[in-house]
Order: sequence, then C-alpha cells, then structure tokens
Amino acid sequence: MSKINHILQNSPRDIPILQATFGLERESLRINSDTHKLAQSPHPECLGSRDFHPYIQTDYSEPQIELITPIASSTAEALRFLQAITDVAQRSLDQAEYLWPLSMPPQLTEEEIDIAHLNDDFEYRYREYLADVYGKILQSMSGIHYNIELGKDLVQLLFAESGYSSLTAFRNALHLKLAQNFLRYQWLLTYLYGASPLAEPGSLKEKLEKPVRSIRNSHLGYINHDDIKVSYDSLERYVTDIESCVADGRLIAEKEFYSAVRLRGSKHNRDYLTQGVTYLEFRCFDLNPYSPVGIDQETLDTVHLFSLALLWLDSLEQVDAELAQAQELNDRIALSHPLEKLPDDAPLAEITEAMQAVITHFQLPSYYQELLEKLCRQIDSPALTIAGKLYQEAEQDSLALFGQKKGLEHHAYAWQDHYALKGYETMELSTQMLLFDAVQKGIHFDILDEADQFIKLWHGKHFEYVKNGNMTAKDNYVVPLAMANKTVTKKILREAGFPVPGGAEFSDKDSALRYYKHIQDKAVVIKPKSTNFGLGISIFKEAVSLEAYEKALNIAFAEDSAVLVEEYIAGTEYRFFVLDGQCEAVLLRVAANVVGDGRHTVRQLIDRKNTNPLRGQDHRSPLEIIQLGEVEKLMLEQQGYSPDSVLPKDVKVYLRRNSNVSTGGDSIDCTENMDKSYKELAAAMAKAMGAWVCGVDLIIPDKEKPSTVKQPRCTCIELNFNPSMYMHTYCHEGPGQAITPKILAKLFPEVSVSSDGKN
Amino acid sequence: MSKINHILQNSPRDIPILQATFGLERESLRINSDTHKLAQSPHPECLGSRDFHPYIQTDYSEPQIELITPIASSTAEALRFLQAITDVAQRSLDQAEYLWPLSMPPQLTEEEIDIAHLNDDFEYRYREYLADVYGKILQSMSGIHYNIELGKDLVQLLFAESGYSSLTAFRNALHLKLAQNFLRYQWLLTYLYGASPLAEPGSLKEKLEKPVRSIRNSHLGYINHDDIKVSYDSLERYVTDIESCVADGRLIAEKEFYSAVRLRGSKHNRDYLTQGVTYLEFRCFDLNPYSPVGIDQETLDTVHLFSLALLWLDSLEQVDAELAQAQELNDRIALSHPLEKLPDDAPLAEITEAMQAVITHFQLPSYYQELLEKLCRQIDSPALTIAGKLYQEAEQDSLALFGQKKGLEHHAYAWQDHYALKGYETMELSTQMLLFDAVQKGIHFDILDEADQFIKLWHGKHFEYVKNGNMTAKDNYVVPLAMANKTVTKKILREAGFPVPGGAEFSDKDSALRYYKHIQDKAVVIKPKSTNFGLGISIFKEAVSLEAYEKALNIAFAEDSAVLVEEYIAGTEYRFFVLDGQCEAVLLRVAANVVGDGRHTVRQLIDRKNTNPLRGQDHRSPLEIIQLGEVEKLMLEQQGYSPDSVLPKDVKVYLRRNSNVSTGGDSIDCTENMDKSYKELAAAMAKAMGAWVCGVDLIIPDKEKPSTVKQPRCTCIELNFNPSMYMHTYCHEGPGQAITPKILAKLFPEVSVSSDGKN
Repeated sequence: MSKINHILQNSPRDIPILQATFGLERESLRINSDTHKLAQSPHPECLGSRDFHPYIQTDYSEPQIELITPIASSTAEALRFLQAITDVAQRSLDQAEYLWPLSMPPQLTEEEIDIAHLNDDFEYRYREYLADVYGKILQSMSGIHYNIELGKDLVQLLFAESGYSSLTAFRNALHLKLAQNFLRYQWLLTYLYGASPLAEPGSLKEKLEKPVRSIRNSHLGYINHDDIKVSYDSLERYVTDIESCVADGRLIAEKEFYSAVRLRGSKHNRDYLTQGVTYLEFRCFDLNPYSPVGIDQETLDTVHLFSLALLWLDSLEQVDAELAQAQELNDRIALSHPLEKLPDDAPLAEITEAMQAVITHFQLPSYYQELLEKLCRQIDSPALTIAGKLYQEAEQDSLALFGQKKGLEHHAYAWQDHYALKGYETMELSTQMLLFDAVQKGIHFDILDEADQFIKLWHGKHFEYVKNGNMTAKDNYVVPLAMANKTVTKKILREAGFPVPGGAEFSDKDSALRYYKHIQDKAVVIKPKSTNFGLGISIFKEAVSLEAYEKALNIAFAEDSAVLVEEYIAGTEYRFFVLDGQCEAVLLRVAANVVGDGRHTVRQLIDRKNTNPLRGQDHRSPLEIIQLGEVEKLMLEQQGYSPDSVLPKDVKVYLRRNSNVSTGGDSIDCTENMDKSYKELAAAMAKAMGAWVCGVDLIIPDKEKPSTVKQPRCTCIELNFNPSMYMHTYCHEGPGQAITPKILAKLFPEVSVSSDGKN
Repeated sequence: MSKINHILQNSPRDIPILQATFGLERESLRINSDTHKLAQSPHPECLGSRDFHPYIQTDYSEPQIELITPIASSTAEALRFLQAITDVAQRSLDQAEYLWPLSMPPQLTEEEIDIAHLNDDFEYRYREYLADVYGKILQSMSGIHYNIELGKDLVQLLFAESGYSSLTAFRNALHLKLAQNFLRYQWLLTYLYGASPLAEPGSLKEKLEKPVRSIRNSHLGYINHDDIKVSYDSLERYVTDIESCVADGRLIAEKEFYSAVRLRGSKHNRDYLTQGVTYLEFRCFDLNPYSPVGIDQETLDTVHLFSLALLWLDSLEQVDAELAQAQELNDRIALSHPLEKLPDDAPLAEITEAMQAVITHFQLPSYYQELLEKLCRQIDSPALTIAGKLYQEAEQDSLALFGQKKGLEHHAYAWQDHYALKGYETMELSTQMLLFDAVQKGIHFDILDEADQFIKLWHGKHFEYVKNGNMTAKDNYVVPLAMANKTVTKKILREAGFPVPGGAEFSDKDSALRYYKHIQDKAVVIKPKSTNFGLGISIFKEAVSLEAYEKALNIAFAEDSAVLVEEYIAGTEYRFFVLDGQCEAVLLRVAANVVGDGRHTVRQLIDRKNTNPLRGQDHRSPLEIIQLGEVEKLMLEQQGYSPDSVLPKDVKVYLRRNSNVSTGGDSIDCTENMDKSYKELAAAMAKAMGAWVCGVDLIIPDKEKPSTVKQPRCTCIELNFNPSMYMHTYCHEGPGQAITPKILAKLFPEVSVSSDGKN
C-alpha cells in the first residue's frame, strides 16, 4: 500500500484532479427590520412543510433558517444553488424581515430565542438539551458548512495506483487523512475566513478584551465541553470514542460531537468501517457578510485547492498529539486581533508550498495560481482578510449597525428583479418562476438542459419533466401539435360549435388570388399558417383591393408555405389563460404607447415609462423597453408627431401597430373584471381541444354584454399551446395573477402549495 | 313565392352555385379468379364487423360487396374516398378474388347466390322476401348510387330570395322539383352512362333480341312490379302513396320502393313533411368497367351540372302524366341498340340548353363547358358512350371475357404499390398505411390537414387525433420533447442505469476545442445536438487529430448551435421499434450497395436492384432508388471501381457511407432472429423514458451474446419519438412486421383488429 501523498505525487498530470461534488449549508437568523431584533414570527408558511423540505429548514431556533443546496458537480453550481435558495428564502419571509449577515447574533436574550417548532419529537427534545448544555445564544451562532466528495473517477484512478485491496479501505484512508490534515491546517482558514470578531455584551461566558478573528472558531465558540476527547488516530478509534461518549451520556447523540470537520455518508459512525466514508463536512466557515449568500466563489475554490494540498502533504505521525497542538494554534489565531499577522510558529510554508505543488503538478488553470497569490497577499496584510475588513467597519461604526446595513442591502438585492431567480437569470422567465416555486415548496429540481428550458422536478418517487414552464406530461402529445396548426385548430373548434373566423387555406399564391372574388368586399386578415410571432400578418379592416391583397399574400408566403385568408373580426383581443379546465387569468395587451402631460416630449415620456423596473430587454423582464427606432418614428410621424414633440395633456400616441408585449406593449390584467361567461367559454374551448394548458385568444366586440351559447359574442382567433405565464403575473396595470404555483400544485398535488404564490 | 327556376335565373352570378356535398355507394360482386364464377367464400374477416362498418358492407348477397363513401365536400373528394375504399376492399379479399366490373352479373344460378350473412334478423328476412318477389339474380345486378346535397349557403341564399316563409318548405319544394325533373330527363343519363348491354342466358324474364344500352335501367331491370304506383305530384302524395303500398302489403317496407331517384334524410318518408328532405339519391348508374371504381370524375361533374340544369328548367305541370311519358322514353332508350342515336322525341335541346345556361349565367370554369361539349359529341356519336364502347368490346370478344379482363386489371392495379393507399399517395407512407387499416376495420377518418399528416379517427363517440402516423394522445407531451433533445435523453437513460455513450455538450467551438485533451487518444463521434437526419455527423473510429477534430466541429456547428462530442461505440446499429412496452420489430439498415456476379457492371447492377417495386423516390416508397451521383462515384473510386467496372462475383461494394434507407440503403427485418434480451432492453429503455412509441437505436458489438442487466453488451445512441413504421413492414430482406395495425388496435381496443394486418 502506497502512502496517499506518494500516490498523488506520482499520478499523471492529466487525471481529473479537480473532479469533485460539493454541497453547502448556511444558517442565518431572521431579523425584524423595524427593531433589528430577532424575528418572533414563525417560520414562513409559504415555505411549505419542514417535514421534508430539502432546501429550506429551520436549524436550532424558529428564526434560525437553514439553507441547504443539493449536491453540485462544481463549486460554481453549488454557489448558484445557494444563490437561488437564498433568493427564495429572502422573498418568502415577511417583507419586514431580513437575514442577519453575521455569524454572531445581534443583541438578544435567551428568552427571545424560540426553539424551532419541529414535528419530530426527538429533534425538539434534543434542542432543549442543547439549550441546557450550551445555552441558546451559543446555539444561535450561524455559519456555513462546506461538503466535499472527491470525484468518483478520481478516487478510482488513485485507488488503482494505491495497492489497497479494497476501495472502501482506500476511501477511508483518503478521508481520514484529509480530516486529520484539515484539523492540522484549519488555522489558515480561521485566519482567512474568520468573521466573528465581536460579541454582543452578555452573549459569551468569558468577556473578550479585544476584537478577534473568529469567536465561533475559538474555544468560546460552538464546541463541545472539555471532557469530550475523540481520537483521529484511526477510524476505528474515532468511532469508538464517540460511541463511548454517547454511551456514558457525555453526548446525547453522535451528531452532538462538534468538530471543524465531520466524516459523512452514513447515519451511524460505525457504518463507515464497513461501508466507507463518502464525503467530508467542513464546518468552520463564518458567514461572510460581504456576500449575499455568506460565502463567495473564490473562497469555495481556495478551499478546494487547500483540500487537494492536504492530500499532497505528508500524513501526521503522532496524530492526536499533533492535532492537540494544531488546535491550540487555531484557538490562538481565532482569538488574535484581526489586524495581527499569523504567528511565526504557524507552519505556513508547508501548506502554501503544497498548494503550489498541486497547481504545478496538475497544470491547473491560472485561476488557481491567482487564488494562491491572493491568499499570500492576505497573509501579508491581515487587513485584507474578512476579519480585518470587519474590524475596520466596526472602527468606523458599530458592527451591529454594519450587520443591519448589509442585511438590508442583501434584502434589497433579493427584491430587485423580484420576478427572476438569482443564479438562473439566463433561463426563460416562466421557468425561473416555476423554479422559484419549486424551491419554495421543497420540490427537488434538476436542470436537464438549460438552453432548452428542460427541467426535472421531483418529490419522493414522483417526478415530472417540464419544458418551457408549462409543457408537461399533463398534456397529451397530439393536442399541442393540433394547436400548432391553425387550420386543424379551427376545424376542431368549429366542429365543437365554437365561433371561429371563416376563411380558407392556400398552399400557392395562384389559388389564393383566385379566391379574391370571394373576399373582395370584405374585411380580411392574411396570415402565414404556422408562425406565431405576428410576422407576415396583414389586416384589412375595410374591403381590400386586389393589389393590396396580392402584396399581403407575398408577405405571408415569405413566412410560410401555407397561408390563411380569414375574415377580419372587429373587437378587442384578450388572452385567456386556461389551466386544467379553469380560466386562471385574462390579459389585454395594448400596443406600445405614451400619454402626454403637456410638458414632456414623446422621447422624455418614453424614457420615463421605461424606468418601470418591470421593463427590460430580451424577454428577461416581464415588460420590454419601448424603443424609438424607425418603426416607432414612422408611427409617430403618421400621427403628426416627432420624438421631440411635446405631447398635449391626456393625448395617447401609439408607437407600434402590434400589441405584443415583446415590442414594448402594455399588459393589463383583466381577470377580475372580465365577465364570467367569457372565461367559461375560453375554458370550454380548451376542453374541446383536449388541452391542459392553453392560451385562448378571443376577439370580443363588447365585453359588457355576456356571452351565451346561442350568441357567443366573440370569436376565437387562436389557441396557444405554450402560453406565456409571466405576462399574466407581472403586469403594466392590474393586480397580476400567479400561474406557475398553480402549475406546480397540479403537478404535485401531494405537496400542499398555498394558493397565493405570487412572489 | 317565386318559382325555383325564376329564383335561380335571377340570382347573382357569384352565388356559390357549385357548393354541394356528395356521397357514393358502389355495389360489386366478388369473383373467384380461377373459375370466374361468384365467390362462395364469406365476406373477408379482416374487414372487421359488418355491424357498424361505415365503408365496406355486404349488399344483397354474401359476395355482393357494398362500398360507401363518407360525405364529401366535392366530387373529387368523393371519388378519392371511393378510390381508397375500393383499394382497401380489393386488397382485403382473398388474393384469388376480384371485383366484377360490370353491373350485370357473370353467368350464375340462383343456387350460387348466398344471401348476405347479416346479424340483423329483419335484414336477412327482407332479403329472403326479395328473392321470392324479384329473384336472386335480379338482386345481384350492381350499380352506383350518387347522393347529392345542395350546399347549405347556396340553399340559404336561394331561400332568402324565394319568398317562402319556411326554409323546410323551400327545401322540400327544391328537392321535389329536382326529383321530378331528374325522372323527366333520366333518359339522358341512361343514354350516356347505361352500361348493361347484355345478360347471361337465363338471367332475365324476357329474352333480349339484341344488345341494348342498359338492361338495369329498363323495365327488365331492378324495378318494382306494375301495381306500385307512386305520385311525384306533391310530397304529401308521394309519402301517402308509398305508405299505402306498405299498408296493403304491396311493399314490405318503404325502402322497397325502387326509383331512379330517392328522397333522403329521414328514416321514414313522413318525416320529410315536417323535417324536410335533406338530399337526393340518384340510383340509376351502371358500373363503368373502364374505371377501377365504377365511375369517373367527368361523370360525377356532368351529373352535378345536369342537376343544376334541372333546377334551372321549368317545373312539370301535369307531373304524373308527363313522368309516365318520360319513363316510357327512358325504357325505350335503355332498350335501344348501343349504337343507335337518341330518338327524335327526346327533348334534348331543353336539357342541353339549360346546362349551357347554367354555365353561362354563373360563369362556371371552362371545365364545365368542356364537359358539355363532350356530352354533345357523345350524343352525336353513340359509339362514344359507355354502352357503345362495350358493344364494340363484345363484338370483338365476349362481354364476359371483357369483364374478366377488366376485373383482373383493376385487381392488379390495386396490388400495384400495395404499400400505398390509392387517392392518398401524396401523404406519408405511414399515414397511408394507417388510413388503410382504419378503412379496413371500419374506423371513420377525416384528414384535418393533409400536408401536415394530421388525421382524426373515430368510432362511435371515441375519437383520436394522429399526426405522422404515430404521434397520438397515447404519448404525453413532454416525453417526445425529451427525446428530441439528445442531452436530456442521455441524462434520463443514464440515470435509469442504461448504457449510453460518454461525452459532453458544447455551445461554442472554443470550449469544444479545449475538450480535445480529454479525447485525443479516443475514437469519437461529433454531431449536432438536435438534427435527426444524419447531417453534420463525423465519426472517427481511431484517435482523431486536432485538425480533423476542429474541422468536424465546424461541420457540426454549421447544423446546430449545440454540438455533442461522444465516445465512438464500435458495433452494428439496430433500430428497435417499441410500442406500449413491447418491442414489435428490429431492423438492420445497410448502406446502399450492390453485389457482383462477374458479368454485369456496377451501373447495371444498380439498375437491376432498382427494379424492385419497393424502390421509388421522395419517400413515397418503402425503399429509395440507389443513385449514381457524385457521392456514390467517389465511394466507388475509393474502392477501386468505376460505374462501368464489371464487379467480380460475390464482391459487395457500398455506394454510401451512411446506412439511411433514404439514400438507397437496404432494410433487413431482424425481428425474429434478434435475441429476446435486446428486445426487452429496448422496451425497458422506452419505458424508462415514459414513451409509448419509441425507436430505440442500439449499437450491438455481438448480437449472438445475450444482454444482461450487469452486462448490457450494447449502447443506446438515440431514441426517436416519431419512428418510421413503413420501413419495418416492407423490407429489402426479411418478412417485415406490420406496425400500423397495432397502433390502430391500441388506439381503438374496442374495435377488434386482426393481428396480421400486413396488407
């Protein structure tokens, strides 16, 4: 059996050394933003059930929220998960609450701390016990746990060179070595990332004389009593020591053993001996208040590099003795002044040289070299560490005030672009909204194809695939294909007795031209059969000339090989969103426009309208910026204005003919004031089509008069099989209707979803 | 109330005068092709149940098949329906049977005629009664019934000008007039389309002295006894007269009243008085043996024009007296010699002038003018009429021999391109095959969009939409979307534990190039992520150079914005067709090739291979013609041959690298000799995906070794969501597997479908 450092040092440079999976857990206290004291409210109801929630839990106390990422295949993915989960958590709180950005709690008394209201009786009693043994305030310190599992291929490759007969034995040796060396060099992480310099008066057993690096990582922090001694000399001894602590009552359970590193992968430590350790949990990270999620990308990667260096280094010989020494060093550094350099007895060169060796041997990208250089600068200048920076903040102001300021800043950041989901902004809005809902309710998700908006959601053994927000297994395959075909849609609706425009389909221009005599005195619409974005459509509200008709045919045939000539239906077009037989929303879309005030120019009015935070670009916002391009200028000119005309008071000018939201149009939620008869008609049309999700476009001449079976008083001009959802939720005008939570509730009826899912 | 002729003559020329719907019924006797006598076999079992079959029934006797079209919106559509139904009927017979193309039966005795085996007891007893009253031979005469309903808009427009207070009264007046005038001018149709000139000895009560135009339309034909007198003077009298015949037993039922025209739309005649006549049934057409379906397009349109002329003409004044006269004239013409001109007392000018007036007034397309001109030529030259032509055939040979020859010709025509469905050849083969099955089993069909291959099938109240042959409601929407995405497919299969190639997806060339170091010593496939037709794929069976890799990336990125780089899997690719959890077929596709015989050149070998009737062009045949273009010549050259090389015996040269059937490849049905373990694996993959219909592409290195869970011994390289069906059925080699009947049986389990559905 070779030593692990030798195996690593002799391995080929192209082994996938960076292959690993990661998971993060972050604790944080909910704070009332009026009083800046611990929130006394219960865990938000909209977060669903803590019985199974994989992402958002409560930790020790009711206001101590715990955010847990799924297993990620890179640090970047882990951080992205944490961003999204943090975003959901922040926006699920009462808006008057924020998350405390520091590890040390704000000023608070034991009485304010309400043990988490968990259904599990053991968990509740365990927390009562912890209050007795450690005190509630100590339990309220928050931090980040960093879980790492070395890549399966990597471990396999190293194992192949190891001479070990069993993979399990090799993995145990690997992890034990990593854990030992982690404790041996933990002082470096304490120096770099310690971020609990001060404590509120009365919160510690000992009074601090001066600010320090990390109370939480010192003997004043979150550690077991002195009578808990656990050896890391061998896995066998580690397991046995903890078991004997539990057996004689020094620990209430194995998980009460607090250590900066924990072996993970089985529920009971003893199982590691037979089944092997799967991954390690590094528990020492204080919350970094400069990041909205409490940790940043560079920290994650530096710690990854640090972990690889730990494997590269020699193993300890006198394990427990040396670790006792290392612990003393760590405590000393944790309690050193934030602007104090590392003590001379810290074996700095060993670990930095190992990090350099890993970079060099495996030819890691230059990014890792830069991380190491930054680390060296922080060693040279303590003021560059987090504790150093916090000390300077506290010098200027109080740390409590800094915590309040940062907490509110992160809170504002979460509510900025509140229709989006942090980390997933490149996906379609509707998908972002659905992911938000899934995270909120504790439904697992996996992005199967990001560019294709293809996700998998699951709860227990029940899974659902979703594409583009509402393309699911709830619809059958052929119905959306029918809706994609305007001729088929019309045939089906007409046969079911619903009003659709008269007209004909042509696959060549000559036949379409011969049809002219049938429409020459009629108002008509000429449109390509299968496009969906309003391209190639000509509308003649009065009798069309042969010349204009031919021109319109040319335009339409340029878009599609089949063209529809339909009667023009006068009235207002509304979009009805129908889900599972129920009309959930009604939207009126109005072409891009501004209304004059007698003082500002058209250009100024547009600029002002564009300041609406809902307006953005490229469909990544619910409304689009109004442009002032050629099309808009021509429209203005036809109405007798230029961009620099001062628009008279109350005069409305349109800048586009088409009412699409995508060209700056306004969306007006009419769900509440649309007559029920039309909503029922739209739902009946979707039902006749067999559609679960359907956008029904109705032209209604006078919505004040209800629709009846004999007189529908409207015409259906289109059914849409993947109707936009976000536009119903975040509107230019009107309350807006949340759709994605309803989709989710229908997909997972077993997971109770509150009805008001609007973020 | 205006007279109908005046209404028509005063109507605007742009009313939709040609608007009408049509339906055809054709009777025909099944004949044994060895003996040319009436088939004694039962109605083919593969035609499903006569209890509900809408298209294929038995008429009077068991071998007298009746083909019924659905209602068609044009004569062309009606003819197309009849073509398809005839095609299905012919190919559903025992291959040793054909349909007798003449109205008059071949030589036969009463004993040979077996009354149709119908489940309905009344229907059976009715036929026994008819045998007593008219004789079985008379009942075995066959013909065509032509149903016409004037267009709803047309009738509404005429009604608006009519002054009638009730639409029903107007429609009754319209139809009664049409029926009266039809009988008045029936002699013209008898002259033009009479086609029963001779009878086999002993089949008639009277002996014919000479050949005639139409026995069937004469008093020797299919008419009631003399004591049945029904007045056409008014609808009231028509109804009452028939009722009294039934009441006193002269008729067994209202439907026993045989007339060249029948009022239709209600089960009982009396209902016409209150609910109105809906359409008319013209019953006088003899089978035209020159058409495989017994009637041709020009006849259908000439009769349509004739019908409009009947409305244009004045009404009769002394209805019954004049109709008695007209009947005498019709009988005389029916029994006139086929080469004899119309008698002088036939009021020819009246009707042809009315036809001309309709053409002129309504500015009908020139086609109608040509039809009228042809009609005039036939009047001038009796030899141009069908009877005239048949007389000439009989002069040369016997009419019985002519009937045999034509019957076999039509039979051969039905079996030519037997994978296709006559009338629907422009649709995809799989859709044609499914339509064939639907017609065969009596499942209603409607083409919702021909170019889009979108059809509706129904039986009773149960309907199903089908696109492209197997895109149905049986699959859920998101599963085919997942299969359309190669990355998602691989993720799902891999997670379910199935073997898929390793690899990575790239959305830009730079990242893909950086990946080179991971694959530089491996065999790889580079392919666009979403195309499906083999475009842009590069295969490197040995380690790829960076230069070649970059070139392959360029080719792939030209096809798609995302590119997959996958490990190359060595072995043979098989397509497994999985339906509803069951593998139904396995196909091996081999690149276009020829095998030498030491005597012919490559060009000659290709030509010979291309004579296979399964080979055609543009995907309208199960196999494609092998081309000899640039690609093929280059392939030949690389193997040291030219098109004019004589290929040594047993040497096989490939003309293409790709094995697609669409580029001339061979399809080899391996269903029966593929190990069950692979079929089960393919079915399990489709199930893991959640697919109802799925084409699973497996690479199998050695199919002699079975697959096991631990050692799948194959790799799945693709799942296909709309897998081709015809290529499994009509193969270059192997028995072929019928798939479409299984699709149909699963869609309509309530309709029993025989398992061997291969046409």
